Amino acid sequence: MRAIWLAECQASLRTDLPVPIAGAGEALVQVRFAGICGTDLEMVKGYAPFAGILGHEFVGVVVSAAGAPQWAGKRVVGEINLACGQCDLCQRGLRSHCRRRQVLGIRGKDGAFAEYVTLPLENLHEVPERVSDEAAVFTEPLAAALQIQEQVVVTAEDRVLVIGAGRLGQLAARTLALTGCRLTVLARSHNHQRLLSRAGIDWVAALDADTTGRCDLVVECSGNPQGLALAQQAVRPRGVMVLKSTYHGHVQVDMSWFAVNEVSLVGSRCGPFEKALRLLDEGKVDPRPLVEEIFPLSQGMEALLAAARPGAMKFLLAP
Amino acid sequence: MRAIWLAECQASLRTDLPVPIAGAGEALVQVRFAGICGTDLEMVKGYAPFAGILGHEFVGVVVSAAGAPQWAGKRVVGEINLACGQCDLCQRGLRSHCRRRQVLGIRGKDGAFAEYVTLPLENLHEVPERVSDEAAVFTEPLAAALQIQEQVVVTAEDRVLVIGAGRLGQLAARTLALTGCRLTVLARSHNHQRLLSRAGIDWVAALDADTTGRCDLVVECSGNPQGLALAQQAVRPRGVMVLKSTYHGHVQVDMSWFAVNEVSLVGSRCGPFEKALRLLDEGKVDPRPLVEEIFPLSQGMEALLAAARPGAMKFLLAP
Repeated sequence: MRAIWLAECQASLRTDLPVPIAGAGEALVQVRFAGICGTDLEMVKGYAPFAGILGHEFVGVVVSAAGAPQWAGKRVVGEINLACGQCDLCQRGLRSHCRRRQVLGIRGKDGAFAEYVTLPLENLHEVPERVSDEAAVFTEPLAAALQIQEQVVVTAEDRVLVIGAGRLGQLAARTLALTGCRLTVLARSHNHQRLLSRAGIDWVAALDADTTGRCDLVVECSGNPQGLALAQQAVRPRGVMVLKSTYHGHVQVDMSWFAVNEVSLVGSRCGPFEKALRLLDEGKVDPRPLVEEIFPLSQGMEALLAAARPGAMKFLLAP
Repeated sequence: MRAIWLAECQASLRTDLPVPIAGAGEALVQVRFAGICGTDLEMVKGYAPFAGILGHEFVGVVVSAAGAPQWAGKRVVGEINLACGQCDLCQRGLRSHCRRRQVLGIRGKDGAFAEYVTLPLENLHEVPERVSDEAAVFTEPLAAALQIQEQVVVTAEDRVLVIGAGRLGQLAARTLALTGCRLTVLARSHNHQRLLSRAGIDWVAALDADTTGRCDLVVECSGNPQGLALAQQAVRPRGVMVLKSTYHGHVQVDMSWFAVNEVSLVGSRCGPFEKALRLLDEGKVDPRPLVEEIFPLSQGMEALLAAARPGAMKFLLAP
C-alpha cells in the first residue's frame, strides 16, 4: 500500500508497504482522510526518534476486527495512545500517560498517512451519521482543545487569551468561545484573523492594555517560545497559563516570575474524543472552514511542504 | 538607630539612621528579632534593585500607632506586602499582588534589620501569648510554607516530595507533614537531614525508585535550577509541582515536557499569617530547632555571611 514513511527524520512516499495485519483486539481500518498536524511537521524536523508511518489524525471505515464482527463497516476515529493497561498509571486511569504506551504515528506504532491503519478496538469511536468525514478528521485535535476545559475551570467572567491562531489555536478558540468567556485570540496572520472573524471570535494582532497583565487564563498554542514570553506578559497574578505548545529543545525561561506572581502553568495534551464528537454532531463547532486543501496521499510530500508554510491551516490527505 | 543597609547590592551596618516615623495608619514597632532569609542573601547578590534597610521577617512590640492607641505595647508580626487598596488586583482581593505594592525590606519600604520598623496597622498580627519571640519570628516563612496548601489540595493518599531542606524546605515539610501525606524530603546536607529526622520526617539523599516519576506533588524549595530538573524527574504525569524557589536570571527548561506529561506548575509566594500563628500557638509546628544562632544587630554583617554558608539554617538578629 501507499504511505508516508519517516526514517531518520526523512519523510518519503512509499508504495511498497504491506497492508498491516490487525493484532488481537485490534481493527483494520481503511483511511478516508488523515490530517496533517504541527506535530507531524516537527517530527519531520527531528522532534521524536520515530521510524514508521506518520500521521495520527484520521477518519476511516473498519474493514475487519478479529472476534468483533459488529465493528465491520463502521466509520470511526481513533484515540492515539495505545496503553498497556498494567502499569501504575493505567491502573489509576491515566491511560494516555501509560508508561509503556505506543502513540499512533509518533512512537512505536505505524500511523494513518496510509491506505490502512490498525488500532485497538478500545481506541475506536464510531462517528455519528451527521458528522461528515471532513469534520470527523478533526476529532483528535478538537479533543486536544477540549482538554483545556478538563483541566481548568473556565467561567463566563474570565478574560481568556489564546496565543496563536494556527491549527490548534483555532480549535481552542472555538471550544473556549462556547463557555461565554471574554475571549480574545492573538493572531498575526491575515488568514488566521479572517477565519476567527468568520467564526465571530475577537482577535488582536498584538497585546494591548486590555490583555497585558489582565488575563485570567492564557492558552499558549503558538508553538513558538516567543508565545510563552507573550503569555507571561498577558496573564494576571494568580492567573493560569495552559501550555499546549511543544517547543523543540530547551527554552530560556524566567521561572522566578512564576513564583513571584503565583501563576500556574498547566501542561495539556490529548483530550476526550466523546465530547469532541458530540460537539461536531451538534454542530457546536464546525472545523470545516479550517481545511485549506485536500491532497491525494500520492502527493503527501507536497502536502507536508504546503502545511509547513507560515500561516498554513489544515491540509488533509485522501488515500 | 542601627540597621543593615543595602545600596547598589552592598550591605553595610549603619548606626546613623533616624528612627523611622510612622505615617497615617502605620505603627512604629521596636524589633525584637529579625530572621535572615534566602531572599535577603539573594538581594545582597543583586536579585532586586532595592536601596534601603533589609529584612522582612520580624517580631516586635508596637511603640506607637497614630490614632490607634489600643495597639501600643502589643507584640506583633507583620505581613510584608503594602497594598494600595485601589488597583484592580487589590479590588479583587489579591492585595499581596497589588500592582503598586511596596514590600518590606524588598521593594520601596525600609525593612526590619533595624531597631525600629514601621508598617500599616492592617499588616500587623498580634502574637498569641504562648508563642515565644524565637518562634514568632518564623511567622512569615511559615505562612509562605502554608501557602502551598492554599493553592493545592493535599490528601493523605498523596506521595509528596519536598526538594531542598534549607530554611523554607524545613518549614514546608513540617506543614505538609500535618496533612498525613506520604512525605519525603530530598535533603543533601547532614545538618538538614538531622533536623528532619528529629522532626520525624522521612528524607532521602537522592531520588530513588519510590520517588522518580511517582510523586503526586513535588515542592521545589532548593533555590537552585538543579532542583527544578529534579522536580521534573520526580513528579508523575498529571502531577503538580509547586515552585517556591526563585532563581537568579533565566533558566534553561524543557517546557514541552510539561505539555507532554500534563504536569501543572504552581508558583507560590506569601501566605496566611493567621494560620501560621495558630499552628505556632497550638505547637503543631515548632520552628525553634531551626535557629542556628542569634547575632546582635551590631554583628549583622557577620550574620549575613554565616547565613550564606552551604547548609546554614536560620540566623536571627537581635537589635
